[in-house]
Amino acid sequence: MNLSGKSYINGAWQAAQTASTFYAFCPATNEPLTQAFFNASEAQVEEATNAAEQAFKAYRKTSMTARAEFLETIAQEILALGDELITTTMAETNLPRPRLEGERGRTVNQLNAFAAALRDNLAELSLDKEEQADPNRTPLPKPKTQLKHIPIGVVAVFGASNFPYAFSTLGGDTAAALAAGCPVVYKGHPAHPATCELMTKAIATAISKCDMPSGVFSMLQAKAYDVAHCLVKAEPIKAVGFTGSFGVAKALQDTITKRHEPIPLYGELGSVNPQIVLPEKIQSQGAELGAQFVQSLLMGNGQFCTSPGIWLVPSNHSQTFIETAKQNISAAPSDTLLTPGILKAYQNSIAVLKAHPQVTLLSAGEQAQSFHASAHLFFTDSESFTADVRLKEEVFGPSALVVSYDNLAQLEDLIADLDGQLTASIHGTESDLHQAEDIIEALQYRVGRLIYGQMPTGVEVCATMNHGGPFPSSTDVRSTSVGLEALKRFVRPICIQS
Amino acid sequence: MNLSGKSYINGAWQAAQTASTFYAFCPATNEPLTQAFFNASEAQVEEATNAAEQAFKAYRKTSMTARAEFLETIAQEILALGDELITTTMAETNLPRPRLEGERGRTVNQLNAFAAALRDNLAELSLDKEEQADPNRTPLPKPKTQLKHIPIGVVAVFGASNFPYAFSTLGGDTAAALAAGCPVVYKGHPAHPATCELMTKAIATAISKCDMPSGVFSMLQAKAYDVAHCLVKAEPIKAVGFTGSFGVAKALQDTITKRHEPIPLYGELGSVNPQIVLPEKIQSQGAELGAQFVQSLLMGNGQFCTSPGIWLVPSNHSQTFIETAKQNISAAPSDTLLTPGILKAYQNSIAVLKAHPQVTLLSAGEQAQSFHASAHLFFTDSESFTADVRLKEEVFGPSALVVSYDNLAQLEDLIADLDGQLTASIHGTESDLHQAEDIIEALQYRVGRLIYGQMPTGVEVCATMNHGGPFPSSTDVRSTSVGLEALKRFVRPICIQS
Repeated sequence: MNLSGKSYINGAWQAAQTASTFYAFCPATNEPLTQAFFNASEAQVEEATNAAEQAFKAYRKTSMTARAEFLETIAQEILALGDELITTTMAETNLPRPRLEGERGRTVNQLNAFAAALRDNLAELSLDKEEQADPNRTPLPKPKTQLKHIPIGVVAVFGASNFPYAFSTLGGDTAAALAAGCPVVYKGHPAHPATCELMTKAIATAISKCDMPSGVFSMLQAKAYDVAHCLVKAEPIKAVGFTGSFGVAKALQDTITKRHEPIPLYGELGSVNPQIVLPEKIQSQGAELGAQFVQSLLMGNGQFCTSPGIWLVPSNHSQTFIETAKQNISAAPSDTLLTPGILKAYQNSIAVLKAHPQVTLLSAGEQAQSFHASAHLFFTDSESFTADVRLKEEVFGPSALVVSYDNLAQLEDLIADLDGQLTASIHGTESDLHQAEDIIEALQYRVGRLIYGQMPTGVEVCATMNHGGPFPSSTDVRSTSVGLEALKRFVRPICIQS
Repeated sequence: MNLSGKSYINGAWQAAQTASTFYAFCPATNEPLTQAFFNASEAQVEEATNAAEQAFKAYRKTSMTARAEFLETIAQEILALGDELITTTMAETNLPRPRLEGERGRTVNQLNAFAAALRDNLAELSLDKEEQADPNRTPLPKPKTQLKHIPIGVVAVFGASNFPYAFSTLGGDTAAALAAGCPVVYKGHPAHPATCELMTKAIATAISKCDMPSGVFSMLQAKAYDVAHCLVKAEPIKAVGFTGSFGVAKALQDTITKRHEPIPLYGELGSVNPQIVLPEKIQSQGAELGAQFVQSLLMGNGQFCTSPGIWLVPSNHSQTFIETAKQNISAAPSDTLLTPGILKAYQNSIAVLKAHPQVTLLSAGEQAQSFHASAHLFFTDSESFTADVRLKEEVFGPSALVVSYDNLAQLEDLIADLDGQLTASIHGTESDLHQAEDIIEALQYRVGRLIYGQMPTGVEVCATMNHGGPFPSSTDVRSTSVGLEALKRFVRPICIQS
């Protein structure tokens, strides 16, 4: 592995001699890694955003076919990085090899899916349309009007630590922006800077092979927060794609608010993804559901944004369900979390729940190492849940809270009390679903994706996906960060009249 | 005319006994009108928004057909107000009868157009789609996913003084929101409160005839600004539609920013709508264009948001154009403006231009009354225009500034220097347009509507219109306030997975 630790700006790898450095962390060994990365400077942010603005003038004129070729070449160059990409990311995240290989596949598929849509002239998005003139209309002739969509301008993208490929350097936001005709200035995630550098090498090769303008993609390495704020303040930036925590999004929004020109922040912040089990279902399939829920919770050691964190179950007949879940949690091996910060936050949340007088610990998994996170399952009743906002907050990691309800009226109140969510699942028999019709109708207005009888983890990347939801699960309920529709974030309408 | 001066909240006309009052102003006589209107209180704002939130639960479940009938009934009830509506608005605005009759027709047509789209299941908007399951897919089965769109929630609407029907009580934003399934809390415009009251009577009758929930529409009378801020702060409000000045929009945005939950402000703020004349065209059709430009400028006495305020013309061969424009300006009768505030702002802007050392007054129209606005035509060169931001600002009223350019390179710089605009028109022969290809490509990124060879006034209400543009012409370049696409402001995606 031959890494520079530098940022990639307007076609060149750069670092100021005076730049401060930072190091990634190896969760497996609980030690910092040895490769130094240079924090980008404010001047470099300016250089990258200005280069992107220049590049926009050429890139926005490229044909859909040329952009499709570019995306396909990026996908090929990601695969050409070979196993070095996987082993590098394993060191930085301790995510298991099959998971990372799967995520790489998804990332390549995302790029190719946008490319295919471009080759089809984005017909599936039904964006553009046209009306003919009617010169004989009275009292005034009708002009010819075409509704077209053009790229919005330079996009700032912030990657997430939990999906180092699919929501990072060349992940969904970057793919959607490049497909739309927008240059990207990407701020590297400090939890996987070596992965960011390798991915940037892939796109740098693609830029050169496809003869794209050099400023079409820049990558800024930075652990320091000032670079992020400097980036979203920069005048050329016309939209921000962000996946991460509520706190960081709020801070970025406060900076964006001070701009002269308002720009959208597409922040995808997370969610407790309530799992609602209805009475008949829990009686007939308690054991099966208990096992399914735990399996979904443990995916990525609970670090999926769609991880099922709150389980609403009837107080009657739920014993089999709870017993199965408890056993499966007890049998769960412990594992690392992505960063020391995430581990600390998880430990704090667990401590709060353990100390809570109205919360019972049902079960906990193995704890093989002191720096591992072990699985936890807690229990509370609906009155206690409603009374304490802390119980509704996301615990990022392998912990879930079972909330029991006594009847459908109480369930309805619980749902009315929920914050906005990326997803919710409803598990019921046909008769259950019929009884709960009004509850399900209301649930729609709390979520971005409503799932019948399936777990929320494993977001399908397709043309009809929506990954986003009412605040605070995302900052803009009107758009998705996954799937073809994500392209709409980065175009805007124009009417051509003649 | 039998007016109460009250607000209409959750199905009842209300005014606190202690409420302060305000009066509309009659531009024709330059005197206040005598009917007192009661300022709504903060408690009334809360009552209206809470009632709307309650109404949302029922209104969002109404069928598209039921909503279509509701919109059609509103349209009928507007017409049923008869001539009293026209005479009332004439007293409040001094807009001429034919203009108001035309605007009433447009407003009724807008409601009927949304109704027709609803009866067609909104097929033209291509919002919803579905993908089938593939249970045999490996490694994981593909779920069935449907992308649907649901109403966003309660919408606050602020009307504009310059379109007392089409952009006011039952104007575009209200029609789009109701069509989308969203209740509306409308803040009455203090320049035409009697018009607001009559229009509210029309919708009140329609609510009753169609058996809609009483909170689906409330109207708050207020001159005081605190009501507006209280409204956009209210928790049930999920989007704001606004047409008005930059300053008021900025103040509302500052209030919205302080909310816990971010919500979109769809503000349409105005624009100078540059008219770009190319060299061959001005030589061949100077007289015709000069007359056309002045005619467009004088529509509504220069108070259209699409009024052509800046004319970019070649320094050579523009004499015929300028002479014709001067003559037509000189012959223009003076007229009132909508409010004393608008009149004062117009007089101030004219004084600034007259006193500007690099600006020449080419011509001025009649001034029949001291409180009339007379037409003005000014001239400057491109260097002076570029050097002074004040020259790029909108003058709301019948004034235009001719800016001469020496060559296409200079024109390109002028366009690069332009603020975001609702529209721009380009007037050229085929050969002109060919020469200016790059300029036109760049111009797209400055406007929401690009017009070839026509004037910007007279926005076509159709499925392919875009009325909005880059900041500061609007606050959200991603959406339109006119035409069928405006409905997209008030829905958001949800994925249903099974």
